[in-house]
Amino acid sequence: MAILSELATEVFIPVAGIIGIAFAIVQWVLVSKVKLSPAAAASGGNKNGGYGDYLIEEEEGLNDHNVVAKCAEIQTAISEGATSFLFTEYQHVGIFMSIFAVVIFLFLGSVEGFSTKSQPCTYSKDKNCKPALFTALFSTVSFLLGAITSLVSGFLGMKIATYANARTTLEARKGVGKAFITAFRSGAVMGFLLASSGLVVLYITINVFKLYYGDDWEGLFESITGYGLGGSSMALFGRVGGGIYTKAADVGADLVGKVERNIPEDDPRNPAVIADNVGDNVGDIAGMGSDLFGSYAESSCAALVVASISSFGINHDFTGMCYPLLVSSVGIIVCLITTLFATDIFEVKNVNEIEPALKKQLVISTALMTVGIAIISWLALPAKFTIFNFGTQKEVSNWGLFFCVAIGLWAGLIIGFVTEYYTSNAYSPVQDVADSCRTGAATNVIFGLALGYKSVIIPIFAIALSIYVSFSIAAMYGIAVAALGMLSTIATGLAIDAYGPISDNAGGIAEMAGMSHRIRERTDALDAAGNTTAAIGKGFAIGSAAFVSLALFGAFVSRAGVKVVDVLSPKVFIGLIVGAMLPYWFSAMTMKSVGSAALKMVEEVRRQFNTIPGLMEGTAKPDYATCVKISTDASIKEMIPPGALVMLTPLIVGTLFGVETLSGVLAGALVSGVQIAISASNTGGAWDNAKKYIEAGASEHARTLGPKGSDCHKAAVIGDTIGDPLKDTSGPSLNILIKLMAVESLVFAPFFATHGGLLFKLF
Amino acid sequence: MAILSELATEVFIPVAGIIGIAFAIVQWVLVSKVKLSPAAAASGGNKNGGYGDYLIEEEEGLNDHNVVAKCAEIQTAISEGATSFLFTEYQHVGIFMSIFAVVIFLFLGSVEGFSTKSQPCTYSKDKNCKPALFTALFSTVSFLLGAITSLVSGFLGMKIATYANARTTLEARKGVGKAFITAFRSGAVMGFLLASSGLVVLYITINVFKLYYGDDWEGLFESITGYGLGGSSMALFGRVGGGIYTKAADVGADLVGKVERNIPEDDPRNPAVIADNVGDNVGDIAGMGSDLFGSYAESSCAALVVASISSFGINHDFTGMCYPLLVSSVGIIVCLITTLFATDIFEVKNVNEIEPALKKQLVISTALMTVGIAIISWLALPAKFTIFNFGTQKEVSNWGLFFCVAIGLWAGLIIGFVTEYYTSNAYSPVQDVADSCRTGAATNVIFGLALGYKSVIIPIFAIALSIYVSFSIAAMYGIAVAALGMLSTIATGLAIDAYGPISDNAGGIAEMAGMSHRIRERTDALDAAGNTTAAIGKGFAIGSAAFVSLALFGAFVSRAGVKVVDVLSPKVFIGLIVGAMLPYWFSAMTMKSVGSAALKMVEEVRRQFNTIPGLMEGTAKPDYATCVKISTDASIKEMIPPGALVMLTPLIVGTLFGVETLSGVLAGALVSGVQIAISASNTGGAWDNAKKYIEAGASEHARTLGPKGSDCHKAAVIGDTIGDPLKDTSGPSLNILIKLMAVESLVFAPFFATHGGLLFKLF
Repeated sequence: MAILSELATEVFIPVAGIIGIAFAIVQWVLVSKVKLSPAAAASGGNKNGGYGDYLIEEEEGLNDHNVVAKCAEIQTAISEGATSFLFTEYQHVGIFMSIFAVVIFLFLGSVEGFSTKSQPCTYSKDKNCKPALFTALFSTVSFLLGAITSLVSGFLGMKIATYANARTTLEARKGVGKAFITAFRSGAVMGFLLASSGLVVLYITINVFKLYYGDDWEGLFESITGYGLGGSSMALFGRVGGGIYTKAADVGADLVGKVERNIPEDDPRNPAVIADNVGDNVGDIAGMGSDLFGSYAESSCAALVVASISSFGINHDFTGMCYPLLVSSVGIIVCLITTLFATDIFEVKNVNEIEPALKKQLVISTALMTVGIAIISWLALPAKFTIFNFGTQKEVSNWGLFFCVAIGLWAGLIIGFVTEYYTSNAYSPVQDVADSCRTGAATNVIFGLALGYKSVIIPIFAIALSIYVSFSIAAMYGIAVAALGMLSTIATGLAIDAYGPISDNAGGIAEMAGMSHRIRERTDALDAAGNTTAAIGKGFAIGSAAFVSLALFGAFVSRAGVKVVDVLSPKVFIGLIVGAMLPYWFSAMTMKSVGSAALKMVEEVRRQFNTIPGLMEGTAKPDYATCVKISTDASIKEMIPPGALVMLTPLIVGTLFGVETLSGVLAGALVSGVQIAISASNTGGAWDNAKKYIEAGASEHARTLGPKGSDCHKAAVIGDTIGDPLKDTSGPSLNILIKLMAVESLVFAPFFATHGGLLFKLF
Repeated sequence: MAILSELATEVFIPVAGIIGIAFAIVQWVLVSKVKLSPAAAASGGNKNGGYGDYLIEEEEGLNDHNVVAKCAEIQTAISEGATSFLFTEYQHVGIFMSIFAVVIFLFLGSVEGFSTKSQPCTYSKDKNCKPALFTALFSTVSFLLGAITSLVSGFLGMKIATYANARTTLEARKGVGKAFITAFRSGAVMGFLLASSGLVVLYITINVFKLYYGDDWEGLFESITGYGLGGSSMALFGRVGGGIYTKAADVGADLVGKVERNIPEDDPRNPAVIADNVGDNVGDIAGMGSDLFGSYAESSCAALVVASISSFGINHDFTGMCYPLLVSSVGIIVCLITTLFATDIFEVKNVNEIEPALKKQLVISTALMTVGIAIISWLALPAKFTIFNFGTQKEVSNWGLFFCVAIGLWAGLIIGFVTEYYTSNAYSPVQDVADSCRTGAATNVIFGLALGYKSVIIPIFAIALSIYVSFSIAAMYGIAVAALGMLSTIATGLAIDAYGPISDNAGGIAEMAGMSHRIRERTDALDAAGNTTAAIGKGFAIGSAAFVSLALFGAFVSRAGVKVVDVLSPKVFIGLIVGAMLPYWFSAMTMKSVGSAALKMVEEVRRQFNTIPGLMEGTAKPDYATCVKISTDASIKEMIPPGALVMLTPLIVGTLFGVETLSGVLAGALVSGVQIAISASNTGGAWDNAKKYIEAGASEHARTLGPKGSDCHKAAVIGDTIGDPLKDTSGPSLNILIKLMAVESLVFAPFFATHGGLLFKLF
């Protein structure tokens, strides 16, 4: 048996969760010490230890009530815009979720014809399991819990981000290090809150459900999978809706502002500027938060459901069963230590230390986590245990399983660094793309697309190798824990990810508040580092999505009683080819949505410039609200079709064509979606940084391409604009597409196994 | 038994082939009546019935020796450039092919350790089959025959096209109908020559090999698969090399000529103009000819090898065995009748009748072919026969098989029309893309990419449905004959396809010879119709490639003795995900190659404009040869890495990882490659026609976007340029990628089955 006792497990998991939440609160308190009310800033200047060093730099003349008040005002506008959008979004999604909850209950309840009698278990035929009707009920409850946790995660993330952005701007007056810490701490608040609350809610749910299920762990963990489905469904709408919102505003603002009117980014005269900043918070913060929460919830559920039918579940070994949650708990502690390296141990003193500081976070957390996994694998797992693999059994050692988790963790790091290589302008790929701007936008686009395609190669090999090794060691459970390994440092990953849009917003606020260009330069440096880490984060999210979906796919296949998914069977093959098509269909929808919404935005912005007298001269204020409304309306309207495509496909295919074709669809969507997702986000990232490379003019080569406004730069701006929907709307949403279809199939597996394949049954 | 006797089969196939060749020669004679030497044109004007109506239109003043001489001179330049490039290409490819021939012989010979003793057959264990060493030898021979036939097909196509283009220009002076007939007849020469020679060479090879193999049909048709591999390998280099050549020149010419210098397309002052026109002939004509020949050869081989292990092969039913060849023979007769509809029955009198005339060809040939297939299925097939399906047997009726061929044929037509809907500027998708140019190149690109993604949906459903139905009826043989059905009207398809670049060149020659804008308008109209039919042709090529690869895949799996390709096995899954990545890797290489070559071309063209005095004024001649050399060098150098990727992947995967992983790679590449190929070629086609839509200004809406040189038009030109490598280099090459990997795996299947999977055997 395991060294860690059941009691110790029951204590350790919630304690780790609470420590994480407490740490998030501490970080938040530290951020809140930066005062936004002019009076407090002036009078409190010398009280709050370490925060009393205002007025030490060139900004003396400007450090007056006006600037602080202006920043506060802009922050309020952004925060209100974001809150109001999220409320509108949640209302619409809420309706959809309620309907879907009913569908879950009805479909799953119908498996045993809504009978309230106990039935023999699927795997241990000699035992009795709880009736399907109650599992349907509990699945529905956990679905709603997952959706609500995801919603709260996204919303809180947005709140923190909009709380922190003006504070980062103000801190930038004191130096780049101060601003960095503020943005990073705010990111950490979100990271820890999300990782910890995800863990705690899941843990409580399991324990509450256990009161009913008792010894029927099969049913218990089957109903828990609803949690992953809820988290991911919410994430889908968050990503797609937020993605359309932010990119419609961004593309619209850039096309008229930067290209036609030649005014800087984030200029307050641009009517779409508030919508653009709101978009960063609802798309890149709330959307991404929901997305990663979904990945985390799904990988936990996949691992738990596979474990529940292994020797852990059958022997009722609670500690072994909770191994996935223990790994996440250790992850929170490891990330806490890692954060201290950035906030307290190393200090960022100047601009070129920012990116290394962020990258160091990834390396430190990965290295520490490897040790953490080794310890917890030794403590929590028996030396040998048995895993089921589509009917056959497999002996696994605790060190074998450690290796599975570790390989996932390190594969994530490799994918992250490859992504960085292809999207950072410190390396030749982006520089080549920048260089191709010499001959215009067309060659820029050709080179950018080629770069994105090429960037797929190494990540796919890394994923393939990890899958092969972890499957060989521990079958589908190995893949599930590899996914968990990749996501175990999620708190740090999210902190770094959220840091980016916060810095971006901080720069926007500096520009709008009319602060000096030196402040803007500092926030730009923060932002540039954020761009690269955002790309790394996206690589991470896609890589983990691949693992998670495969694990969920494996769990689905087990649950649906499919023994073989044979490509040579036409039922499977047509699923495979149609599945591989879905990411294209989905991308077509989301990209067209961004395009159409951007067209409307462009027309509105042009209209305002043409009809509001004094707008260009800065004497009249633009009508920000109309632009906010255009983005809101477009994203609410346009998120429904792609959302429906993803949510309905498994239901329709499973019901009409059955589990074999559905298996094909899932496999096809997975292998095709991963490629498009990686290439789309890297292409977009590379174009963005190629443009920044030309703008910054940091090298001899870069200066021959620039300056801002040159033909090369204009070509680069076109590439950047094309990349926006690729990297921030369709690319990241594809992660969710592949995960969500897999988790939904898993939840509905009992239904499909019983009633699925109507069409083939008819003919 | 079948109604058609063995003797009748033996007569009918070669006779159909010879009729096809004779028809091609007649068409060529008719084209050659348009005289290119000034003296002959003047004196022969009234002799050649129907061709004596020179001087009837506005061109009287220009119809002098000078214009004809000028056209002849330009045609000679293009023809010489194309011939010299193809010779250089063939030299390099020849070396590669020779090495590969040795590899085939050594690998296949090693299967039984180079033994010269007969062995028990793979399928009929009670009989003795010929030794593997001789099958290796015959495979090598048929590989070389396939390569040579493909090479000759491409070369003759190019020769005919460069023979016809100036003739089309001259005929355009007499009216659009005359020009249309000349271009169309020339296309028909190529179509019939290729379809017929492919059939005849294959038929002769089978009969010659039979002298050695006698009753061992298993070995006979196994060795015949080399023919498909040879055809396809040649096609790969033809497509990639030709594609890089033509697009480097095209992109380079456009970027400097149209965008920077504001001179018209094909202006003789542009130094890259000859290279551009040469490119059309080596890429769109020779490359495409080799490509479709490859498809044809592979689908025939796939069907034959599957049939050889069915009841036809076991009962030695020669007529049934030759059913695939009989279908192609009927196809030649049907296409011959169809051609007469365009050349003799209907007459094209004005510009807007061109596109309907071409589309009518497709519909007529499909309708007639349906009847033809029904007749030949009734005559050549026994009422019931047995097909093997991975170890199990399947009873098939002759009407069932007719249905398989017909569904392939009609699926091709559907794919063609969907392609037309998404790429013709008569419909809303392209008009929307054109409209998005209002807000610049970025939205144009976003809309164009979204259009390409969307255009995948219906073709994939059509393919999936046809695969399901034809597999259900006749297992893998059903899919193989469905592919044949789609390709049965290849002569007409190729005629229409080749018509496009010929018209394009005719327009170029008119421009360069300084003919009046009315001539140019006519050739432009011919060209615009050609653009749409080219897109239809590409859709056709991709659809048939999907069927062919699946059929080859099935044959490979049978031959390698794989019973199940289980996605749940990690060996297969890693193959699947890596296979799905290969089209991205390949596209990255080819697009980057075009981009780099275009950059060099741009620099050279700019250099000539800047350093040659009097070039812009038209008083000095540009240095065409240097541009031709840049394209040649780039394409020869750059075609090797993507070629090697495709050719080596099956060898490496099969040898190191074995047949299961290789099956995964093939399936992954197929389901992912089809999507990229369709979306890439439709995106490119849509951008091209969106630009033409703005230029033509044929509707109220189009006129608000134009005219040439407006901001909208500039944005459209950028899209068109980006689309060039997508639609003419990477997109169409992907067909070959998926087909070639499958046929290569099939040829090497005995080797992989015996010696493959070294890596897994070691660990």
